Amino acid sequence: MLKVAAKDIPATKVHTLISSEVIRGTKVYNFAGDHLGTVISVMIDKFSGQVAYAVMSFGGFLGLGEKYHPLPWHMLKFDQNVGGYVIDLDKERLLAAPSYALTDPLRWEDDEWRTRLDNFYKPAPPKR
Amino acid sequence: MLKVAAKDIPATKVHTLISSEVIRGTKVYNFAGDHLGTVISVMIDKFSGQVAYAVMSFGGFLGLGEKYHPLPWHMLKFDQNVGGYVIDLDKERLLAAPSYALTDPLRWEDDEWRTRLDNFYKPAPPKR
Repeated sequence: MLKVAAKDIPATKVHTLISSEVIRGTKVYNFAGDHLGTVISVMIDKFSGQVAYAVMSFGGFLGLGEKYHPLPWHMLKFDQNVGGYVIDLDKERLLAAPSYALTDPLRWEDDEWRTRLDNFYKPAPPKR
Repeated sequence: MLKVAAKDIPATKVHTLISSEVIRGTKVYNFAGDHLGTVISVMIDKFSGQVAYAVMSFGGFLGLGEKYHPLPWHMLKFDQNVGGYVIDLDKERLLAAPSYALTDPLRWEDDEWRTRLDNFYKPAPPKR
């Protein structure tokens, strides 16, 4: 399924659904066009069916030292021209963002971790 | 992740997120308590992040003759007591529902198929 690149489909016929089986591997870029990482999975609210976070892998080599960064879904915009997601996030800020390692999986039921994650991505209050 | 059964968590601390990596295998029951099948994948709107369908496997033996039934997400209610989804759908009606085989995958961009699927699950007009 979904072997056709979105850019090959006329705009009026864009196929908007993606299977949870193939969302893994979707690329993530920032506004500067840097390739930040690759979607590994998405976290879905099992009641509402709304995706809350995309989990992006970043760095590492053959899985060694690989870091997983959950990104709030509302920050991601799907760009059908690049066939991936775009986020307003520079590389330096990503390096400072909450992440976890494969060997130390995130406990999503850990409210403290969730709060830290959500706070990190909250827009900064306007300067005055 | 998610090794704790929902029923073991106090209601106030229900963990509502599920990874797209582990949603496969979630059971689906009807109101009569019949086990209808198992979630294989979900179809996600890649722009909004809203799940549109759960694809349920039904029948078959070791993958032979297995049928995939896409179920509109809004018909599924997550029941944390059973740790699965419940749908108002009897077995006979499910047998008549649009499905596809592993060897003949559904082309989600096929608007005619999608319309047939959505129409099948539309509530019947009230009798008069």
